[in-house]
Amino acid sequence: MEVMQVLHMNNGEGETSYAKNSNIQRKIISETNSSLKEAILNIMCNNKEVPEGIGIADLGCSSGPNTLMVVTEIINIIYATCRKSGSSFPELRISLNDLPGNDFNYIFRSLPAFFQKVKEEKGAENCYVVGVPGSFYGRIFPRKSLHFVHSSSSLHWLSQVPVGLATNARTTLNKGKLYISQTSPSDVIKAYVSQFQNDFSSFLRSRSPEMVPGGRMLLSLMGRSSIDPTIEDGCYYQWELLAHALSTLVSKGLVEDEKIDSFNAPYYAPCPEELKIAVEKEGSFIVNRIEAFEIGWDASVSSNSSTQCEDKKILLLSMGQQVAKTIRAVVESMVENHFGNEIMDDLFSVYGDLVDDYLYKKRAVYVNLVVSLTRKD
Amino acid sequence: MEVMQVLHMNNGEGETSYAKNSNIQRKIISETNSSLKEAILNIMCNNKEVPEGIGIADLGCSSGPNTLMVVTEIINIIYATCRKSGSSFPELRISLNDLPGNDFNYIFRSLPAFFQKVKEEKGAENCYVVGVPGSFYGRIFPRKSLHFVHSSSSLHWLSQVPVGLATNARTTLNKGKLYISQTSPSDVIKAYVSQFQNDFSSFLRSRSPEMVPGGRMLLSLMGRSSIDPTIEDGCYYQWELLAHALSTLVSKGLVEDEKIDSFNAPYYAPCPEELKIAVEKEGSFIVNRIEAFEIGWDASVSSNSSTQCEDKKILLLSMGQQVAKTIRAVVESMVENHFGNEIMDDLFSVYGDLVDDYLYKKRAVYVNLVVSLTRKD
Repeated sequence: MEVMQVLHMNNGEGETSYAKNSNIQRKIISETNSSLKEAILNIMCNNKEVPEGIGIADLGCSSGPNTLMVVTEIINIIYATCRKSGSSFPELRISLNDLPGNDFNYIFRSLPAFFQKVKEEKGAENCYVVGVPGSFYGRIFPRKSLHFVHSSSSLHWLSQVPVGLATNARTTLNKGKLYISQTSPSDVIKAYVSQFQNDFSSFLRSRSPEMVPGGRMLLSLMGRSSIDPTIEDGCYYQWELLAHALSTLVSKGLVEDEKIDSFNAPYYAPCPEELKIAVEKEGSFIVNRIEAFEIGWDASVSSNSSTQCEDKKILLLSMGQQVAKTIRAVVESMVENHFGNEIMDDLFSVYGDLVDDYLYKKRAVYVNLVVSLTRKD
Repeated sequence: MEVMQVLHMNNGEGETSYAKNSNIQRKIISETNSSLKEAILNIMCNNKEVPEGIGIADLGCSSGPNTLMVVTEIINIIYATCRKSGSSFPELRISLNDLPGNDFNYIFRSLPAFFQKVKEEKGAENCYVVGVPGSFYGRIFPRKSLHFVHSSSSLHWLSQVPVGLATNARTTLNKGKLYISQTSPSDVIKAYVSQFQNDFSSFLRSRSPEMVPGGRMLLSLMGRSSIDPTIEDGCYYQWELLAHALSTLVSKGLVEDEKIDSFNAPYYAPCPEELKIAVEKEGSFIVNRIEAFEIGWDASVSSNSSTQCEDKKILLLSMGQQVAKTIRAVVESMVENHFGNEIMDDLFSVYGDLVDDYLYKKRAVYVNLVVSLTRKD
């Protein structure tokens, strides 16, 4: 699987689209608002006066209501600061980046209304938005063009399936699993850890020349709280349940066993220590802060539904199916590429039931890491 | 009709897509190659040494094989110049602009292969391409960010249907016609001339702050050779024939008369004098050259087809249908928006027959204008 060609959140705005199933990512963005404000204020007040132009990039912007949410928040902070200090609104050069398979058309068609709103509310006309297709694990921006880099719910995606675990690998090391699991041999864990280290270093090395000295970076990604990657924490169990759902389809004759053995998700949830060490090793950035927070799997389900249903079991069932939709919007492009389109409905229906059962037994949470960095002078 | 919302070349790569029906625009780009080379060399040699970074924009880039053709040609020229002078390849910041309805996804998905080719052939890795959705009749780029602006086959599209001629106008001035015609009252002609003047001035006024002093602009657009806009020249007859095709559908009960009366194309083919006066009036640019060249309607038809058919009438029939496909790929978004999707196949089939008849009688040509400008210091 060529991750760069295959990976994208579900396009459009239909029932299974990311645009319609991205509440959880929205909540994660909201949780980082205070860090966002701190970083933007720092950029604006770092210099004695507000800079004439500010370069901003959102990496892994995806397509949906969240895409312009961070940008809107940044504009609000800058506008409020300028009003307070009596300075004029700086020229904003905003770059929205994602892989070339992302639905940029969807974003671009929502921009005229967005600009209209910014103009009406802030009187700002000097705000320029461009789409930048490409992998953030390589260079995608000109030298010293960025003051602020933001990325949310993206850096847990690796640039490729870890070396040695790819579909065409000669031996299948990770039998019956899609990600690191308690049954995974140590070579599987090593391959994942090493791929993440390589990728995250490439990410930092690519951003380093693109950012101005003193520029700020705010990254949030799925992670784990423990140093042990096989611990039941973060997204770990989501991949376990997806493997379980696939093996259910094996028993129904819809999927071949070997297909599961040969799929390994290009995903890794690091612990804070791994991030810290990688940043220090690369050397261009100062770590201001690394934080972790938890968010329930059911955070994607609107609170309204709980008032409509009193039976806890049924309520959880509906939650499971809703969680399944959230996951489907994110992983379907990859899973479909490997297992074929025809099993997708069955797969995520079985998956939803498994999530229901799981949520009935446990309080399941994602662990999300937030990293605040400054580009050294 | 909101032109900004509606106008786009046919998306995707199907039978009626612009990607599959844009030979004529490709030939127009080829015809301007020597002017392109002259402009790029001027930018590179204007300064004593090759600039470190060059900002390039293609306005109205559309989506299809032509989109990256100009960019490729520019890279070839810059690469050859650097090799000759022994200088290193400058950082290229390439912006592809079109209206938000353009199929940017199609372009973006072709970029990885494009970058791979540039890297292999030129060893150049410092080439950055972004998509910029928006109308070039307003500001779309940051201040002084562009060294070279290119636009081909786009500036004949107006920002709106001329004031007074819009669908919701109280009186229909241009009965039975879609564009300026010999039967059009003088108010129709005045409305078109005035809309073009306003739009072209807005275009120049918007580019002026976006370009560096000494920056170059190369524009090619449909035009006419005579000062009289009602003369049978350029695209004039294409709109006449489309009006004729629609009135044929009226007689079949498929279209209402009033629908034709209330449609006026947001299009204008200026003469060289109009362009020159507009540039001088705006004042930020020097006119280096304005040229006109003719290109046959049948230039879109590959020369192979003529060897496969000896009967001139049949050959022309097939040409008419092919010309109709070219026009359909360009105007369908607007025509469909006004007349409805269900008549499109019939309309362009009748239109193809009419073009066949016309080509049998006349040698039909488009007039294309090429304007070379320099941003004043």
